Amino acid sequence: MSLPFKKIRSIVGNENILTLPEDLSCYSFDASKMRFVPEGVAFPADAAEISSLVRLANEHRFPVFPRGAGSGMVGACLARGGLAIVTNRLNAILEIDVDNMTAVVEPGVVTGDFQKAVAKFGLFYPPDPASLAFSTIGGNVAMCAGGPRAVKYGVTRDYLLGLEMVLPTGEIIRTGTRTMKGVVGYDLTRLMAGSEGTLGIFTKIILRLIPAPESVRTMTAAFSDLDQAVSAICGILRARIIPSTLELMDQTTISVVENHLRIGLPVAAQALVLIEVDGPEAILDAQVAAIEKVCQKSGADRIEAARSEAERNRLWQARRSISPALGRIRPGKINEDVTVPRTKIPELVRSIAALAKKYDLTIVCFGHAGDGNIHTNIMLDRRDESERRRAGKAVEELFAIVLGLEGTLSGEHGVGIAKSPFIELEVGAGGLDAMRKIKHALDPLNIMNPGKMFVPDRSFLDGSFV
Amino acid sequence: MSLPFKKIRSIVGNENILTLPEDLSCYSFDASKMRFVPEGVAFPADAAEISSLVRLANEHRFPVFPRGAGSGMVGACLARGGLAIVTNRLNAILEIDVDNMTAVVEPGVVTGDFQKAVAKFGLFYPPDPASLAFSTIGGNVAMCAGGPRAVKYGVTRDYLLGLEMVLPTGEIIRTGTRTMKGVVGYDLTRLMAGSEGTLGIFTKIILRLIPAPESVRTMTAAFSDLDQAVSAICGILRARIIPSTLELMDQTTISVVENHLRIGLPVAAQALVLIEVDGPEAILDAQVAAIEKVCQKSGADRIEAARSEAERNRLWQARRSISPALGRIRPGKINEDVTVPRTKIPELVRSIAALAKKYDLTIVCFGHAGDGNIHTNIMLDRRDESERRRAGKAVEELFAIVLGLEGTLSGEHGVGIAKSPFIELEVGAGGLDAMRKIKHALDPLNIMNPGKMFVPDRSFLDGSFV
Repeated sequence: MSLPFKKIRSIVGNENILTLPEDLSCYSFDASKMRFVPEGVAFPADAAEISSLVRLANEHRFPVFPRGAGSGMVGACLARGGLAIVTNRLNAILEIDVDNMTAVVEPGVVTGDFQKAVAKFGLFYPPDPASLAFSTIGGNVAMCAGGPRAVKYGVTRDYLLGLEMVLPTGEIIRTGTRTMKGVVGYDLTRLMAGSEGTLGIFTKIILRLIPAPESVRTMTAAFSDLDQAVSAICGILRARIIPSTLELMDQTTISVVENHLRIGLPVAAQALVLIEVDGPEAILDAQVAAIEKVCQKSGADRIEAARSEAERNRLWQARRSISPALGRIRPGKINEDVTVPRTKIPELVRSIAALAKKYDLTIVCFGHAGDGNIHTNIMLDRRDESERRRAGKAVEELFAIVLGLEGTLSGEHGVGIAKSPFIELEVGAGGLDAMRKIKHALDPLNIMNPGKMFVPDRSFLDGSFV
Repeated sequence: MSLPFKKIRSIVGNENILTLPEDLSCYSFDASKMRFVPEGVAFPADAAEISSLVRLANEHRFPVFPRGAGSGMVGACLARGGLAIVTNRLNAILEIDVDNMTAVVEPGVVTGDFQKAVAKFGLFYPPDPASLAFSTIGGNVAMCAGGPRAVKYGVTRDYLLGLEMVLPTGEIIRTGTRTMKGVVGYDLTRLMAGSEGTLGIFTKIILRLIPAPESVRTMTAAFSDLDQAVSAICGILRARIIPSTLELMDQTTISVVENHLRIGLPVAAQALVLIEVDGPEAILDAQVAAIEKVCQKSGADRIEAARSEAERNRLWQARRSISPALGRIRPGKINEDVTVPRTKIPELVRSIAALAKKYDLTIVCFGHAGDGNIHTNIMLDRRDESERRRAGKAVEELFAIVLGLEGTLSGEHGVGIAKSPFIELEVGAGGLDAMRKIKHALDPLNIMNPGKMFVPDRSFLDGSFV
């Protein structure tokens, strides 16, 4: 179908709509590397314009696809025809309230910029998805973004207090509060966190802030056995220390990164754990000593603690180099962010090693061990049809393993298109039915971000990639 | 209508159903002191029986009213005819997983008992509603219970990871995860927190735990001016110290309690603040010193720090004695738990003092100042019709004041029957409509806890009290 461009132009203005193929192409992908081309891309200025666009969409029955920075991992923002609505013009930090430790932002504010803005007041917005230098708060809320700090600080939903939003039928509503407490009516605010642009387009976001931690300490520990690493992780938490970072690299990851960097990583180790603690300066040395003791007791081979910012950067270098290093071993990857209770990490990583062997694949595991969120990268060359098919089978088996370990298919990336064939495995027929009913109640014409979450779509596994 | 008792008996067994007026009477009220009598009270054993009861209700079109310990403040559990479903037989702590810091409980577990059970493992479940000695986790989740510790630790929703529940149409579903992260589908788990028994009956609850804090310090500070007290509270938080308790008593409260206890409270003070910090022993003395400095700088008249458990109990005695003391000055009260951004507390408390004068009422303000949750008790004798009418007017004006201060009508008590006439004032027509649509989508026959939240009911203001 063709969009009513004349009416769309009259809402957003001529200069805020794209329709040329070469322009549309720039908005046809996200970090999933899937590709779908919208018919038009609109850049509304405010909530009123978004509301008008959505009402027009209901009237003319065309789909709208909310889009932030396009950094999502599962194709949740991809426009399959219809109108992409990009929120990047709504990019003001409207308010930072130091005494109440809250902020009000528009959805197009870049997460990293926001963190810097609040840091000037000694405040801290903890969620730290890897994309934070370019991803926006609106997208972070829509996907309920996480990051390494979640083990101590939680995820985006834990800092979300309220919203102004445009519903799929065009009404503008306000949800939530400016306070930590608030129980008037259903919690629409938290329902929206992770709703992936299917239930509304956010136009203002009220966020909770916390005091910035005074200091930080960084260390790494290498283990010749995965169980030892996880025993150390649990031991640290049992010692009442909650690190702000507890990142794990498995043996394959260590090797891949060492081949890339040549910095003397312990390639024989089965696990390398990066640990960071933050908080009052007065307690950190004692915490580092306690962590060293726990790691030694668990059988760590090598423990390094940074004594300077330069050393800290060196310890982080391996973790930060994983993605570029992976790019060198294979042109493509399927990046799953499965999550299991942390004690089950050894079983998960071992099962994945067995899968890699079974399907003759390289699978690299690393990620947020403190909260059990293990990024599982199945390396592949998508031009190799056999490899692609084997990878697809490995993904399906991986999901069965994860659910068997009482885990979740996605800790922080979401469903979008990529995981839509598998959602029912986790939430069950009854859960999926309840979700569909909510979707239908708020979006009876299925106008907002259709084809995501609920519609099993195997295109992610079968091709159609940039 | 008459309930199909024969079928109900066949589901729960003869010994698990009450029908005699004198028995029903015991289940006709909650802490709101409103009174409505159910036709029957059922005590199912498990999720399957609850599911059967709910399916029967859909078939025979009778309402069901989920009920925990009946300690709610707004009548949310009251059964107006129909069948009360009491969850107290589902009272097992099914699992405490020390290494993953999670627990699985049934809804009938008493919150205080659960806290003691996890404390044995060095773990901590922070939510601490005043009713915790008898209220149950199921009710706490349904109402999203808070408490004094919320300023540092958050509320029930912040510890809720997943649910097993019976939907209003009888299906048993599982929601959420056992991990901090999890973004597969809509967040039904958090939608249920605070849904007040209108969207489902919980049968299993997965909770997040944290390490127990090592130590605690308690102190009080008296101020001759409200602004000074709030400036001190903001100053403490600006100094990067987040107390686990920041309780405020206004001048009326101090007088009422002193008249009751005669322990030498500073009756001339405009505000008495109870402050507690917890965490690693190594930092607490420095935090107490820093807090003293902030309080002095803000103009505190008298600062006391507990040096022993006995002294700590003495400092808490005033706070704990508020409710019994209030009972001595007037037989009844309307207890509102309005919440405003904390910097607006002075304006709120002064406006309330003006209201008290205008309507010739005694209004007592105290509560959780750190998160702006001020319990506003309008004292009254319900037999005095004039006083009741004046109190009703004061409540309506109070709500307008609170919303004008960007606050919320309820921080932790909820809507139930008591606040149902006012919900639209806060959430707006569009917000209320979205909530009603969700309710209708999941409960098309309006079987589960009807007459709450969405149905304006002024009985709370007009009478019908025990």
